[in-house]
Amino acid sequence: MSAHLRFTVVAEDAGARRGQLELAHGVVETPAFMPVGTRGAIKALTIDQIDTLAPDIILANTYHLHLRPGDERIARLGGLHAFMGWQRPILTDSGGYQVFSLADRRRISEEGVRFQSHLDGQSLSLTPESVVDIQARLGSDVAMIFDECPAWPATEDEVAASTDRTLRWARRGRDRFLGLAAGADAGVPRPTPGQAQFGIIQGGTYKRLRDRSVAGTIAVGFEAYAIGGLSVGEPADLMYDIVAHTSAQLPSDRPRYLMGTGTPVDLVESVARGIDLFDCVLPTRNARNGQLFTRRGPLSIKNARYAEDLSPPDPDCACPTCRRHSRAYLRHLFMSGEMSAGALNTLHNLHFYLDTMRAIRKAIVFGTFSSFRRAFHEAYSFQPSAS
Amino acid sequence: MSAHLRFTVVAEDAGARRGQLELAHGVVETPAFMPVGTRGAIKALTIDQIDTLAPDIILANTYHLHLRPGDERIARLGGLHAFMGWQRPILTDSGGYQVFSLADRRRISEEGVRFQSHLDGQSLSLTPESVVDIQARLGSDVAMIFDECPAWPATEDEVAASTDRTLRWARRGRDRFLGLAAGADAGVPRPTPGQAQFGIIQGGTYKRLRDRSVAGTIAVGFEAYAIGGLSVGEPADLMYDIVAHTSAQLPSDRPRYLMGTGTPVDLVESVARGIDLFDCVLPTRNARNGQLFTRRGPLSIKNARYAEDLSPPDPDCACPTCRRHSRAYLRHLFMSGEMSAGALNTLHNLHFYLDTMRAIRKAIVFGTFSSFRRAFHEAYSFQPSAS
Repeated sequence: MSAHLRFTVVAEDAGARRGQLELAHGVVETPAFMPVGTRGAIKALTIDQIDTLAPDIILANTYHLHLRPGDERIARLGGLHAFMGWQRPILTDSGGYQVFSLADRRRISEEGVRFQSHLDGQSLSLTPESVVDIQARLGSDVAMIFDECPAWPATEDEVAASTDRTLRWARRGRDRFLGLAAGADAGVPRPTPGQAQFGIIQGGTYKRLRDRSVAGTIAVGFEAYAIGGLSVGEPADLMYDIVAHTSAQLPSDRPRYLMGTGTPVDLVESVARGIDLFDCVLPTRNARNGQLFTRRGPLSIKNARYAEDLSPPDPDCACPTCRRHSRAYLRHLFMSGEMSAGALNTLHNLHFYLDTMRAIRKAIVFGTFSSFRRAFHEAYSFQPSAS
Repeated sequence: MSAHLRFTVVAEDAGARRGQLELAHGVVETPAFMPVGTRGAIKALTIDQIDTLAPDIILANTYHLHLRPGDERIARLGGLHAFMGWQRPILTDSGGYQVFSLADRRRISEEGVRFQSHLDGQSLSLTPESVVDIQARLGSDVAMIFDECPAWPATEDEVAASTDRTLRWARRGRDRFLGLAAGADAGVPRPTPGQAQFGIIQGGTYKRLRDRSVAGTIAVGFEAYAIGGLSVGEPADLMYDIVAHTSAQLPSDRPRYLMGTGTPVDLVESVARGIDLFDCVLPTRNARNGQLFTRRGPLSIKNARYAEDLSPPDPDCACPTCRRHSRAYLRHLFMSGEMSAGALNTLHNLHFYLDTMRAIRKAIVFGTFSSFRRAFHEAYSFQPSAS
């Protein structure tokens, strides 16, 4: 069965695109933010709570699910959608980023990566082919190819070698994907036959390597393309420059996915450079650490000044947390170590991210994206949490 | 303003009572189970999630809220209902049980108890009067008197001395409560003017001490009465015997509250002995430890046998967890340390407790409580968790 992906750009405005991405489990309105559900669960939230936030698509991590509970087990249980009780689109990353983060516990070769499980130290490996098989078993709507994400900073030679290997792996991964789709290996069940596969552009902050990666990845040919290897420590301006440079070379009839980014400002700036899809742990991780994003910038709920503050975290927010609770109560829950603090803060932060994307989509359709972008920057002055 | 409490017994059957308890913030259908919200939050759940469970009343802990965020702060924020965003009835315990649990960090005198805060070691005290003031500031619907709960086992002389002191404290607490209600101390705001005060019967497992405590507490006179000092380690049969003995002597036109109990079987057995109100940490605490209560007995979700079990925790349950998730998924969340495991397990266990109370209430009205009780015991064989 062939991959299922249809992408329609319904409006363009000031470099930004408003689109509809049809995947096997439903339509994603773009630009879209994908909440991160590492282990088949968005941290601190139940699936019923995720429903109330209504994201069109979520992300899950191949590395974590391969280790526990195991992709073969998930396949036996009917695939990741059935396992989670979530019937809308899911994108799975390739596990590459996680494996390379293991630093001294992994060894890279042309074949793939050998590594020790962070759970029990067991020696395991991932290859461009096995990562395709794992994601086929998970049955996500979108599977990412296995790529190598170099650290920042790195020399041009280092990044070039890594980028070229990613290109060779992309070819192997695509061959495996097409083979499975053609029924080559009956041993790999495919809970989502209409799965799409995205290629990943690497090349660090070197434009000529980005160019080489774009050309090579498009030559292999995928349903769509992602920009990887950014948001790894480089300055924001450099990131925006590379995003603009790379995005412009990607096919305009396919969605463009900027991986692992970013702050609310990063989202607005990257949309302005033609990006359609995002994921990031920032809203969920910071929520658990007590940082709330608001239309006026971030707010640290730990701060003593909120101890008797009866206003909601963000007076302009319609999320379940802001509709019902005061900063005073949220601070109390956080200081007391109540688990519900994590849930309420996560609900708010994800709502803020998803609502920002809704506002972006509306502005593009109305042709007011430039003024939206200016107003957003004026209202939102990003400053690190006070505590 | 006078205390607000009206209790109507609408049906009786085989020793059990079906009643309606009107409190300042609403009606409680009895027999009722009160989920425990120690720090102004039911552990692992948001208030929106508690709404979906629809308990008529919840319990909060005076000791914890006095220490953090402080009852004076809560009063300034409009009382505990406004602080939590929960507008239905709340019962607050007196803090006695927690203070006595501090063991070597507290010193009891006739005046009250001096203790060191479990948070920062600060030296603090609670007296029968201060506990009334604290609960007035919290503005709960029901305030409990400050009692001393002796350990089990204890000699009759030890329990007698403690029971008599509790009686003297009951008189002081009631005087303070009536004084505040009459406007004696303008320095104590009363967010819930219609607050009711319950006396507590002590006496351990000694029937003649229970008799003395009942007579003395009724002589002081409260809106209603609770049975304290049970579920502290004594055998279940002995507890049931003391409950029956004590309950029979309490006024039939007031609700009877058995404090800190218990297992599902304890609830059914105590209702059969005339009890109307319960609270216990068992469903919430065990949920976080992976034990799920079901109509067929408890189930430890950690058990490897559930790793590929697609059935819900309890096939006969309509809770949000059982409607959507399999044992396999819940086991995965628990083994992965996901916070949502705590939320989903707590939703299930509280639903089970509240649903058991609904079934009990229905059986009493239909005059089928005896057959319900038999069927419950047959289906539900309590056995400790396998792991």
